[in-house]
Amino acid sequence: VVLVGGGPGDPGLLTVAGLGAIREADVVVADRLAPLAVLEQVRPGTEIIDVAKIPRGEFTPQEEINRLLIAHAAAGKCVVRLKGGDNFVFGRGGEEWQACAAAGIDVQVVPGVSAALAGPALAGIPVTHRSLNQGFSVVTGHVPPGDPRSTVDWSALARSGTALIVLMGVANLAAIAQALIAGGLDPSTPAATVSNAGYPGQRSVRASVADIAAVTAAAGLTAPAVTVIGSVAGFDPLAPQ
Amino acid sequence: VVLVGGGPGDPGLLTVAGLGAIREADVVVADRLAPLAVLEQVRPGTEIIDVAKIPRGEFTPQEEINRLLIAHAAAGKCVVRLKGGDNFVFGRGGEEWQACAAAGIDVQVVPGVSAALAGPALAGIPVTHRSLNQGFSVVTGHVPPGDPRSTVDWSALARSGTALIVLMGVANLAAIAQALIAGGLDPSTPAATVSNAGYPGQRSVRASVADIAAVTAAAGLTAPAVTVIGSVAGFDPLAPQ
Repeated sequence: VVLVGGGPGDPGLLTVAGLGAIREADVVVADRLAPLAVLEQVRPGTEIIDVAKIPRGEFTPQEEINRLLIAHAAAGKCVVRLKGGDNFVFGRGGEEWQACAAAGIDVQVVPGVSAALAGPALAGIPVTHRSLNQGFSVVTGHVPPGDPRSTVDWSALARSGTALIVLMGVANLAAIAQALIAGGLDPSTPAATVSNAGYPGQRSVRASVADIAAVTAAAGLTAPAVTVIGSVAGFDPLAPQ
Repeated sequence: VVLVGGGPGDPGLLTVAGLGAIREADVVVADRLAPLAVLEQVRPGTEIIDVAKIPRGEFTPQEEINRLLIAHAAAGKCVVRLKGGDNFVFGRGGEEWQACAAAGIDVQVVPGVSAALAGPALAGIPVTHRSLNQGFSVVTGHVPPGDPRSTVDWSALARSGTALIVLMGVANLAAIAQALIAGGLDPSTPAATVSNAGYPGQRSVRASVADIAAVTAAAGLTAPAVTVIGSVAGFDPLAPQ
């Protein structure tokens, strides 16, 4: 099984090795966020399994995806697991790797361009800029601050000095911004939300962290989206250097 | 000017769009860490400028690189700026963008696979794993903790709940580990250093955060290297799920 990171959406942001693996595959197991246009490049006879669409509702349970990967690989097929972004950035690549390893199936990894970094870049925001920051933090916004399931200390992140990049956070953006401001982040800190990065429908908005949730909602930006909070979100290539 | 992220070293980890830009280029301005093997694919007559090797010592000053990009673009040439990893992850892409914009030169961005994420992946370490963490922080270790130039709060990072990924940190690894432990990080937290990720000479070591600096040094691992500190650094695909 080859775990291939498909990049943020634009088929051109797939890697050369990833495209090669897809062209050699007998079976491609793909997600909703994978760059589906590249699937036109498979060789004749390749089976494409869209795990966003097979039965049991919108999402295929992870156990069923693991089972599919193992069954096809055990049958001697060359299997590509194609995800959007990178398989190890909230992509469950580790879980699939463990499941394959437990079944005695070899796994190869082809890293992809993560939307966490490329999304901001495609909207004109460098995740690091020498005069502004010495690091960035990428966190899922799927679990809101204060939720018992949360293992992220948003208050510590607010004081970390890093730019914050929130994935899957549109629904919880107001709570996240509030937690960061409560943790000491200046409410006027620049922020930006980019939706559909790398797709033709890419859109972005900028505002202060205090306003970014309202501005994102008012603009109608929805998932998939990435929000950047920090001075780099105010980056302007035309600003004086 | 097209800012192309070359990925962590393996030419296969360049993106399809990045390779296309290199094949179309009149001039390629490349770094020491760019995947130089792909430069064999330029068309005849393309000028390749290795800015790691032109005069004034080991490094070309950024101002000189900016000047080269602008001069060639202003002369009507199609210029590719090829970096290792991604141009916006400690790659000065923003500075080059601003310099070009100030000179009236259009800039296109082709994000690359960052070694910060791919380095760990290629050594078997997912930067996120659902049962272990909900985020990660990428920081430069070039400026040590406590240095007046540092804008990173290492103590806050220690408490953030994110896995830490340190780039350019081999020389300062002992000081970084000490700052994290002083900030509350459990000294037995798993850690790993990966050097030359994506290159044939890739090597990695694992240890606790308390021991990782000594183990990295004893193994003779040198830059370019990435160190991961957090439970994901103990990831084992063969562990029970």
